Amino acid sequence: MSKERLYIFDTTLRDGAQTAGIEFSLEDKISIAGLIEGLGVDYIEGGYPGANPVDTEFFEQKRTRRATFTAFGMTKRTGRSVENDPGVQAIIQSKADATCFVAKAWDQQVKVALEISLEENLDNLRETVAAAVAAGKEALIDCEHFFDGFKANPDYALSCVKTALDAGARWIVLCDTNGGTMPSEIRAIVSSVLAVAPGSRLGIHAHDDTGQAVANTLAAVEAGVRQIQGTLNGIGERCGNANLITLIPTLVLKPVFSDHLETGIDADRLSRLTKISRAFEDRLNRAPVKQAPYVGASAFATKAGIHASALLKDFSSYEHVPPESVGNERSIMVSQQAGKSNLITALARHGITLAKDDPRLERILATVKEREARGYSYDGADASFAVLAHEVLGTLPSYFTVENYRTSVERRHNAQGEEITVTEAVVKIRVDGELLMSVAEGNGPVNALDLAMRKDLGKYSTRIEDLELVDFKVRILDGGTGAVTRVLVESRDGTGERWYTIGVSANIIDASFEALYESITYKLLKTGATQDSTVEVA
Amino acid sequence: MSKERLYIFDTTLRDGAQTAGIEFSLEDKISIAGLIEGLGVDYIEGGYPGANPVDTEFFEQKRTRRATFTAFGMTKRTGRSVENDPGVQAIIQSKADATCFVAKAWDQQVKVALEISLEENLDNLRETVAAAVAAGKEALIDCEHFFDGFKANPDYALSCVKTALDAGARWIVLCDTNGGTMPSEIRAIVSSVLAVAPGSRLGIHAHDDTGQAVANTLAAVEAGVRQIQGTLNGIGERCGNANLITLIPTLVLKPVFSDHLETGIDADRLSRLTKISRAFEDRLNRAPVKQAPYVGASAFATKAGIHASALLKDFSSYEHVPPESVGNERSIMVSQQAGKSNLITALARHGITLAKDDPRLERILATVKEREARGYSYDGADASFAVLAHEVLGTLPSYFTVENYRTSVERRHNAQGEEITVTEAVVKIRVDGELLMSVAEGNGPVNALDLAMRKDLGKYSTRIEDLELVDFKVRILDGGTGAVTRVLVESRDGTGERWYTIGVSANIIDASFEALYESITYKLLKTGATQDSTVEVA
Repeated sequence: MSKERLYIFDTTLRDGAQTAGIEFSLEDKISIAGLIEGLGVDYIEGGYPGANPVDTEFFEQKRTRRATFTAFGMTKRTGRSVENDPGVQAIIQSKADATCFVAKAWDQQVKVALEISLEENLDNLRETVAAAVAAGKEALIDCEHFFDGFKANPDYALSCVKTALDAGARWIVLCDTNGGTMPSEIRAIVSSVLAVAPGSRLGIHAHDDTGQAVANTLAAVEAGVRQIQGTLNGIGERCGNANLITLIPTLVLKPVFSDHLETGIDADRLSRLTKISRAFEDRLNRAPVKQAPYVGASAFATKAGIHASALLKDFSSYEHVPPESVGNERSIMVSQQAGKSNLITALARHGITLAKDDPRLERILATVKEREARGYSYDGADASFAVLAHEVLGTLPSYFTVENYRTSVERRHNAQGEEITVTEAVVKIRVDGELLMSVAEGNGPVNALDLAMRKDLGKYSTRIEDLELVDFKVRILDGGTGAVTRVLVESRDGTGERWYTIGVSANIIDASFEALYESITYKLLKTGATQDSTVEVA
Repeated sequence: MSKERLYIFDTTLRDGAQTAGIEFSLEDKISIAGLIEGLGVDYIEGGYPGANPVDTEFFEQKRTRRATFTAFGMTKRTGRSVENDPGVQAIIQSKADATCFVAKAWDQQVKVALEISLEENLDNLRETVAAAVAAGKEALIDCEHFFDGFKANPDYALSCVKTALDAGARWIVLCDTNGGTMPSEIRAIVSSVLAVAPGSRLGIHAHDDTGQAVANTLAAVEAGVRQIQGTLNGIGERCGNANLITLIPTLVLKPVFSDHLETGIDADRLSRLTKISRAFEDRLNRAPVKQAPYVGASAFATKAGIHASALLKDFSSYEHVPPESVGNERSIMVSQQAGKSNLITALARHGITLAKDDPRLERILATVKEREARGYSYDGADASFAVLAHEVLGTLPSYFTVENYRTSVERRHNAQGEEITVTEAVVKIRVDGELLMSVAEGNGPVNALDLAMRKDLGKYSTRIEDLELVDFKVRILDGGTGAVTRVLVESRDGTGERWYTIGVSANIIDASFEALYESITYKLLKTGATQDSTVEVA
């Protein structure tokens, strides 16, 4: 049986730009467009040329290779012709392959917000679509407020659809603009629209105001629409748009959809999903959401001892899809609640094999619990867990000890009267009995300490040359008697491996120092410095 | 027409405890139980007595006033009687009003994970329910893997439901344990279950692995179940449980549900929803999710100029429910994309009235854009926006200037040979020509700077007595030529108002200092120090 084609329309760069706290630069847009293409979507809506300088410049070139490059804008204003509407012209004359014009489909909005007649609104819609088609563009119409409009005045909402269709629009997209519609309503209303337009010409644009943007999109697909609109990681105005990163694997992997629908996304592209989702958060300087469906760090993580042992017997029962299909991985975590089987699995990941009845397991578990009570959290700091386990087991070499350190930050005026800030750190380290003293300046106290500590590690110096600090996160925990600071450091080395270490202290500098120290220790463990140092010390 | 009662079952303290990175202490559980009661739910599942010391102690007392206090556990093991199963006894003998026992409803899981016969599994289920009922408890059964079980062997899944019902269970809860079921499947399978059990005895327990836990829950309610299970803010294993904070307003406010169903939650309790959701995140030491439906800081926020002007004409079109119904508020944000109407609204919030054609609007907008390009973000730092606007308008009094500051952190050994960390800051401030020099020790460099700066502000000192630093967040931004640090400081004063200020610099100390400085400036502006200082300076 041949499958029907379902088209995926990405509006990360247009509707996603409405997200509170997100501003895309031109470089952001170019880079993100590349990520989206890697996903294999059919349309990329890049913005609103003419509305701001970034979008205008973005549309001065074609920015996609495979996906249809789409420009967004408003249908023409009443009282002027398409030719004399600079907004419409900016879009039609851009380098876009397709144009997506928004038109209101709710009678009340036409009257109150636009202050024009219902007929004028249809005229604007018709003439704009016709002009785009005449200019050789593929034409799409976003019917704004479609579902609220349909509930208030179904005839008018449907006449917007018919007008666009007759004028030559390839797609009419039904928008749940304020995000308040329920899936059952979407299903019923889409069925009514099918009386005037085929599903192969209809799209759905949902928002997450009731936490159902994904479900609303899928309900519309089940009812018959064949284009879905959404954004990477569900960014967008208010609660966000439908999340394509969640929708795509469901559409590709779940038989209820994949048995009769096909998208442009094959298994290979799907396996890049987790990487793309996280690269996008990197670009936005945000931490990835751990609980994100399919791609979150916790999406295939198990904590409970009971589930973990069942899981080891039969993965399929607790994993609705194989984690590798979306490029993610299974994880069994260490925590206070950890049963011994979790712990054994976590230790094995670091090459430590212990039998189930080994009394040292209890000792490790007790240490983890005691430290978590003080604010540590090993769920997200696996390298610190490895260091801790080696410490408890007595297998952690004493690479180097820090005798003392000092860091200072001073803002003052220099000889030229300019305001400057000088940051310095001094670290005294002992390696094999020898005292090494280093000083460094840095961008800030943590950077200066990091540079000073790594400046001279004696015989270990070459081993940490490719160690790089990638990120540094700070959280204030309100722990009983006083606030403590938790610092999480992300490191990376030449092999591409990333690891996380943690430090906790009332003092942010002490906490940072602890996390830096553990990162270096982990790196030395990883390079097998264990053996060397034992040999050299002996 | 009388409405059917829909019951809400909160499992934040039980299934929510499976969340990666979350560990509840006894104090956490007591405090969170109070929050959940404030919401007005019907059942509070507090944990698994006997499984760990915290849960055991939690169930030594009844911890709820109005909600049914519920203990979770496993049905009895094969080969021993209920009387001789310590797990079952711990639950039955706890101070819980109700017991929720989990039983597998998927034939394959019974065979593979439990390694018992299908009939033995039913016996265990029957005898456990009967024992709970005999002990005077209200009995609930969680049918684990119900939907996967039904797809594989509907007869066996249904026989689990019937066995529990016949044994006297008040509720049989259908669990989508691995979270992979689609709403349309939930709807169809629940309809089949209704042939053997009434909806008034059925519950739904959904997980968010396809981003549809909320939709799956609502689909089950539409199909007929009358109990929903979920957690505060959707915490839970992997991608989390159904989010009660999202479900409750939909069930109470949307006519498709509220026309024929009623919950125990009235308008007054609903209006506390935002507060409860955020207090819960505070307890977890997490930042609230801005995009969260109904309760997020962005849930009723508008950025786009085009939407903002339409919004001002008619709120209902862009807000699917009134923000105040859930205790949230509308916000119109300032950003690069801001149109002038957004800006005018934002300024009005700080008592600054400018006409639409005032050329100073352009100047403020240009300054915001220039600073956002350097890493500032005023969406989340409204107090810094107010300070900036006054600065551009020339209405910011020069309260005090900082001549220079110095902070140092030193870890060393004291006279007793103990390792100590000493943190100190010196700040030189000029107020009305007078140089004030202060020194302070602190928990860390930012705390020491904050204390030193506030130690002596001359004539302004009394005005900032009730100023308190509540939180401090750090983010590393990867900006073109080099990383910069963005610090967001949350402050509070005696009036209960909270405000946010921002600092950006390559140096974390400089960035923190800037945010602290702006927080004090905002506080002085707020106390009307403008007039005073002008008078005194003049």
